[in-house]
Amino acid sequence: MRIITHLTVPARSGRSVELRAGQVLRVVDLEGTQVADLVAVSQADRHEYLDTSRTCSMLNRIYFRAGDQLLTNLRRPILDVIRDDVGRHDMQMAACDERRYQLDFGAIDHPNCLANLTQALDSFGFNWWEVPNPVNIFQSTPVQDDGSFIQLPAQSRAGDCVELRALMDVLVAVSACPQDYVPINGLQPTPIGLEVLDGVAS
Amino acid sequence: MRIITHLTVPARSGRSVELRAGQVLRVVDLEGTQVADLVAVSQADRHEYLDTSRTCSMLNRIYFRAGDQLLTNLRRPILDVIRDDVGRHDMQMAACDERRYQLDFGAIDHPNCLANLTQALDSFGFNWWEVPNPVNIFQSTPVQDDGSFIQLPAQSRAGDCVELRALMDVLVAVSACPQDYVPINGLQPTPIGLEVLDGVAS
Repeated sequence: MRIITHLTVPARSGRSVELRAGQVLRVVDLEGTQVADLVAVSQADRHEYLDTSRTCSMLNRIYFRAGDQLLTNLRRPILDVIRDDVGRHDMQMAACDERRYQLDFGAIDHPNCLANLTQALDSFGFNWWEVPNPVNIFQSTPVQDDGSFIQLPAQSRAGDCVELRALMDVLVAVSACPQDYVPINGLQPTPIGLEVLDGVAS
Repeated sequence: MRIITHLTVPARSGRSVELRAGQVLRVVDLEGTQVADLVAVSQADRHEYLDTSRTCSMLNRIYFRAGDQLLTNLRRPILDVIRDDVGRHDMQMAACDERRYQLDFGAIDHPNCLANLTQALDSFGFNWWEVPNPVNIFQSTPVQDDGSFIQLPAQSRAGDCVELRALMDVLVAVSACPQDYVPINGLQPTPIGLEVLDGVAS
């Protein structure tokens, strides 16, 4: 596959990219142990978006893996997971937001994924309450027998990636998670790389 | 507590009720082994609603139990779980919808929770894509070690209930789940009782 565009999502911030159906988004953990919150919306209808709950329901499990299709709120495939170097991600936890840092850590104006995603989608006319629940790539917060999460450092190492093929024209936003109170990012938020590939086997 | 209003959600259908802050909604499994999908929206701001993902994040677990507060997308408490006769519910699986029955069972025009909830909220101006992910009361679909769901019959018996105190003025919609292809409702969907109580200890 040939790289069409690439960009860096700076640590603690967000960016958006647009993909045509068939193109591939490579999400790269550039330095390791870094979570990337990702949302995806159909270009044809902004009311259709990658829906974590319907994806889990259709997969009949709460984790995705290579070979899975992620689905929209119309249960249509939107992204195909064609490569996964890590095998440990999350689809249950909400994006961190301003209130999360206030309530749990007493931190005011802390950078957060919801603000990053909202800002990344701002020029496309999204309000914060329209930002879907994200897929948390590289996030290692597995669910225990009693239903509780353990919050572990991401298992991704520098250069590890996930590749997602767009199955429709899609707008994607990614936040390099700014969480530095719990160890999911190794207490040191770092950037995420995004590469858009033409999707053609070379 | 004194009952202010009560109604029956007929099998396979949906209804809405409005509660003032402090009032209590009692959700009753009238005949046993029946799931009730519930959504709740703030009356003051329809963009603020009971958010299953943020609730799980703040509880740090995927199941709720008596004593828990369910939260909105602003991480504000909206419902307080003051009684739970069963102790087994779900907040992960999407409402069943038209596409679920088409894709997984080849059934066309099957009654479904999303249509029930949308219809119950129709007079309040909601579109289907604005119906939040529901809390699935009495649904027994526990997550296994590998992340997969097992779909078991609801453990609720006739008369078992959950009581939810409204912590703000709230619009609630409930669907008596029409699922009859998997055994979550014992393969025989039945009605759900709703009672609004004044919330005053008697």
